[in-house]
Order: sequence, then structure tokens, then C-alpha cells
Amino acid sequence: MSGRPLIVTMGDPAGVGPEIIAKAWPILATPPGPLAPVTSFAVIGDGDVLAALGAPVQQIFSPSEAAAVFSRAIPVLHHPAPAPVTPGQPDPRNAVAVADWIERTVDLVISGEGSGVVTAPIAKAPMYASGFRFPGHTEFIAELTADMPFSGTRGPVMMLTAKDLRACLVTIHVAIDQLPELVTAERVMRVARVVHESMKRDFGIQAPRLAMAALNPHAGEGGSIGLQEIEILRPAAASLRAEGLNITDPLPADTLFHDEARARYDAVVCLYHDQALIPVKTLDFWGGVNATLGLPIVRTSPDHGTGFDIAGKGVARADSFIAAVRLASEMAAARATR
Amino acid sequence: MSGRPLIVTMGDPAGVGPEIIAKAWPILATPPGPLAPVTSFAVIGDGDVLAALGAPVQQIFSPSEAAAVFSRAIPVLHHPAPAPVTPGQPDPRNAVAVADWIERTVDLVISGEGSGVVTAPIAKAPMYASGFRFPGHTEFIAELTADMPFSGTRGPVMMLTAKDLRACLVTIHVAIDQLPELVTAERVMRVARVVHESMKRDFGIQAPRLAMAALNPHAGEGGSIGLQEIEILRPAAASLRAEGLNITDPLPADTLFHDEARARYDAVVCLYHDQALIPVKTLDFWGGVNATLGLPIVRTSPDHGTGFDIAGKGVARADSFIAAVRLASEMAAARATR
Repeated sequence: MSGRPLIVTMGDPAGVGPEIIAKAWPILATPPGPLAPVTSFAVIGDGDVLAALGAPVQQIFSPSEAAAVFSRAIPVLHHPAPAPVTPGQPDPRNAVAVADWIERTVDLVISGEGSGVVTAPIAKAPMYASGFRFPGHTEFIAELTADMPFSGTRGPVMMLTAKDLRACLVTIHVAIDQLPELVTAERVMRVARVVHESMKRDFGIQAPRLAMAALNPHAGEGGSIGLQEIEILRPAAASLRAEGLNITDPLPADTLFHDEARARYDAVVCLYHDQALIPVKTLDFWGGVNATLGLPIVRTSPDHGTGFDIAGKGVARADSFIAAVRLASEMAAARATR
Repeated sequence: MSGRPLIVTMGDPAGVGPEIIAKAWPILATPPGPLAPVTSFAVIGDGDVLAALGAPVQQIFSPSEAAAVFSRAIPVLHHPAPAPVTPGQPDPRNAVAVADWIERTVDLVISGEGSGVVTAPIAKAPMYASGFRFPGHTEFIAELTADMPFSGTRGPVMMLTAKDLRACLVTIHVAIDQLPELVTAERVMRVARVVHESMKRDFGIQAPRLAMAALNPHAGEGGSIGLQEIEILRPAAASLRAEGLNITDPLPADTLFHDEARARYDAVVCLYHDQALIPVKTLDFWGGVNATLGLPIVRTSPDHGTGFDIAGKGVARADSFIAAVRLASEMAAARATR
């Protein structure tokens, strides 16, 4: 196994992050498997926490050592948590280290030593208590890469995957009340451009086919059930087509997610959280992946939180983390071949 | 085959109604099959339109004749359309007959001659052009049965089914903008009561388990992404539990629809159209059924429209209509055994 490794952040060490990394490693390290070209990873975090779970851990000092180690142990760029780690009990004293792990990980990918970032979950409350000032991983990583050159439309745009579905979000963690204000032509168009470019850059799709979900039932039914389709979304789709994108007019969201519908597009632009997350989690509750599009670096994460309620019990499922590593590998490989 | 038949309305004769009835009949008439106790049906509509499709049709003059006929021909209570029927071209002159078919069907179920109603699709525009003054089937049937005694909470409540999912709607064809105004505790509670009672009456579930979907992402995440969960939905759920219903607090909608989640409840109360229809159509795009709960009579319909664009081409799929007949049979049987 060769090539630059992905860099994995441990996430909150009191959450399920260490456990899912430990569970994923033997599955990803053992050929044969449906492995993409870049599959080794190095973990940045507290190696002792991983070792305490019984996982074989080997400390490395540079990502370049990871590939040679990966088949027999989890390569760890050891960076200890300052306070004792108790599963299920996040400690704000460790939150500064958690942020450092993310920052160091991103730096290693910016420098080219790592091929992409996979982030295990963090929790907002202990991070905020330590002074962390970003809404989450995504915004932090966008900031860390803001000065990096990037030939394309900048995101971040959140994409969720499940099976063959790639669902991209115009709004994310906002109340339903706010949608009428936030679903603007400018936002929809920016997201569509990021998705279009990402399909080419990160997925090797030369002529991406995009679908646009409508906001209202039946896509507004000619204006009788809401006007956003007529006033905002159809004009936005027309403008995007004039720019050269292959994107549909807004389509009734309930017609977009069954097997035959998904075969008609490479990615769908969704307008709100549950419009994307309901089909993603209905199709594959455990294996969904969150990818951040439109960044200078590749970044994915599992589509779940820290799971403090189950941390330390050995019951966390690694499906989503495994899928996140595989997706990051594919995206990094696609970027490397351009 | 014995017992009272279901009564099927032909719907708009220029739509796919006649075709799906003709396609469904041999499948429903041929044992063996997973047939519920009440499976024969009689059609009210233009028998010549059915016969022109090549289906074996036999005119009957009372629903009581249907059971004996059903295994060899489609029993039809012939009631001709006044104007020529051209597939794909609805004619307002026939719309009065379409409304009459529905009214006569409902009368036959009110009188006890039919066991339930299955309605093939109608289109709003030609109905409105003929003076029809109801938003759709559901409201018309509610009005026709308004004077019929009913020992329970009145609907109508729209329920959509797919596989083992029963998704019931608090709001239906309304713009997203209107949800904050329309999602009230009173509406949620009334719908939940109708659903609870229907699970017992129509599905034979003695202790129904209901789930409530949240309005906002992550169920509002403690109020940080919308307040309806705290201000409206949790209090409504608590009040319902105090009344004796087994219903959850509002749960994040994206966690409600995968296989394991669906196994935890008998029906879910959804707050808006796409929240219910996205999972229904993702799980089973062709076989979804629309059932109207809280009426004095059983009523189901296929979960699709008139399909004027494909009418007359022989390509319409009868999956949903077949499932609608089966569901109405089951519901009628459950009511009959109470």
C-alpha cells in the first residue's frame, strides 16, 4: 500500500470517535475489499485512547510513514488530550486539543502530506465552552483553508450521500420558519455551481446531471401552493442552464428519491435539511456520509454525532465512518488524476 | 367469493382510471393471492370505456351481484359519460358524471351495500369548470358522509402508506410559508386522535403506537433551530399521552423512516406534505396508497393523479390502485369484525 494517507481527526475523545476508528481500521486495512487507490489513513489524536480500546496502534511522526504501517496497526500522529478521557463525559479541557487536532490535520493536507481529511464527530457545547468560535467543523475547515488557492466556486457546500444518492444542501441547520427568507436565487445558484464543479473535480463526472428539488408540495403546482418555484427557482435553473450547467427545473421533492429517479441525476440540490436527510437516512440510515464540497481540500465525515450516550459501551456502528473514509479516498483519487 | 363488494369510482374517464382498473382486475380476481376477506369490487362509471380497453365487463344493477360476477368479469354499475371520452383529453361535460359517480358510490357504502370506497383519480380543472366546489375527493366525501353517525373523532385525515409505513398528515397541500401558521397544537392533536382511533377501528391494532415527527431539523435541537417543538409539539404530545394515547415526543424526521425506525410505531403523524411523501415515495414509488381516516366509511385511493399525459398509451401502472383495493379490503374487514 502506498500513496499519501488520508488524515483522520479523532473528534471528541469522549465520544464514539475512537471506537469507530478502531472498528473501521481492520475492515479498511484488510484486502481484498472495494478499496479506492488511496486508502491508508493516519489518525491525529490521543493514541493512548485508541490503544485502551485494544486496537493495535503505532506512533508515527510523519504522514509518509502511514502507508507502510497501515496493514498491521493504526498509524497515529500522537497528540495527547490534556485531561483524562472518560467515555460519555466530554471535558472542555480537552476541547482545545480537539480543535488543535483538526487544525493540524488540515495543515497536513494543505501541505500535501495528507490526501484529504476525515473528521470524527465533535460536540458543540464543550467546544464552545473552550472558546471555539465556529458553528462546526465545516466552517472551521473553510476558514483554515481560506487562503489556499482554489480554482473554482468556493463552498462550503454540505453533501450527504447514501447508496447512489448525492444530496446537496442550500440551507442546513435553520428553522422551517426561516426558509422563505433564506432560499434565494443567489444561494441556490452558488450551491449548484459548487456541486457541478465538484462532480467533475471530485467524482470524475465530465458532464454532471443535476436535479433541483422544489420547496413546495407538487413544486408549487403552478403557483397555487407557493410561489418560490415561479419567482425564484425556475429563473435560477434557467440562469444556471444559460451558464452551461445541466440542471432541471425544480421538481416535486417526493418524486426525486426512488431508484429510478436517482438514476436520472448525479447530484440533487435540496433546499432544506430534512428534504435531503429524510431520503438519505431512509435509504441508508447507518452508512450516510457528509462531504464538504467546494473546499481546496477533500473533507468527509460520518453522518452522526458524538454519541456520548453510547460511548464506551462498544455498540457504536462504524458503517458511516468506513463509508466516509472510502468516499474521501475516491474524491482524493479523482483530484489527483486531474 | 362472497361478502359485500368495495365500490370503485372510475375517476376521470379520460385519465388512467379505466386502464388501471382493467389492469388490476385480473390480478385481484385470480386466486391464489394475498387477498383479504372482502376483495370483490364493483365499478361505478362508463362500462363502455372499460370494455373498449378489452376488459371483460358485465353490467350489474346492484352491488349484491358483484361477488358472483367478479371472478369472470369486472362488475359495472353502468352510468355513462355524456360526452365522448378521449384518453388524455378531459371534458368538462363529463365532469358532472364523474361527481355523480362519486356521490352514488358513497351512497352505496352509506346504505351498507358496499363495504368501502376506492376512488380512481380525478383532475381539478375540469371538475371546477363544471361547478364542482370541493378541493378534491376527500372533502367531497367528507361532506357526503357528514350526516352519517360516527362514534369517534371525525377526520378527514390523509394517510399515505408504503410497505409498513403509515404516514398521516397534519397539513397537506399548503406552501412551506404557511406551515408556521398552520401547525397548531389543536390540529396536531385532532389528527393524532383520528389516527389513534383508526389504528384500532381500521387496522385491528388494540394498543396503537404513534410517532410524532418534528417540524424543524434535529427536532429543533433544544430550541436553537426553531421553537415549535418546545412551544407546540411537546405540549401537544404530553396532552395526548394524558388522554391515553401512546405517542412520542416530536422526533427528528430524518430518523423516523428506515426499517428499524418504522418497526417502532404503527403510524407516524407528519406535519407537512413532503415530510410524509418523500419517505413514502422513496420506499415504494409505485405502490403507495392514500387512505382517508376518520370518516364514517372506508375510503382509499391510489397515490397518483389522472396521468393525462400517459392515458390511452397502455403504460399506466396499476400497482398503487391494486394496493388501494387491498388496503380498503383490509380496513373494511377490520371494521366488520368490530
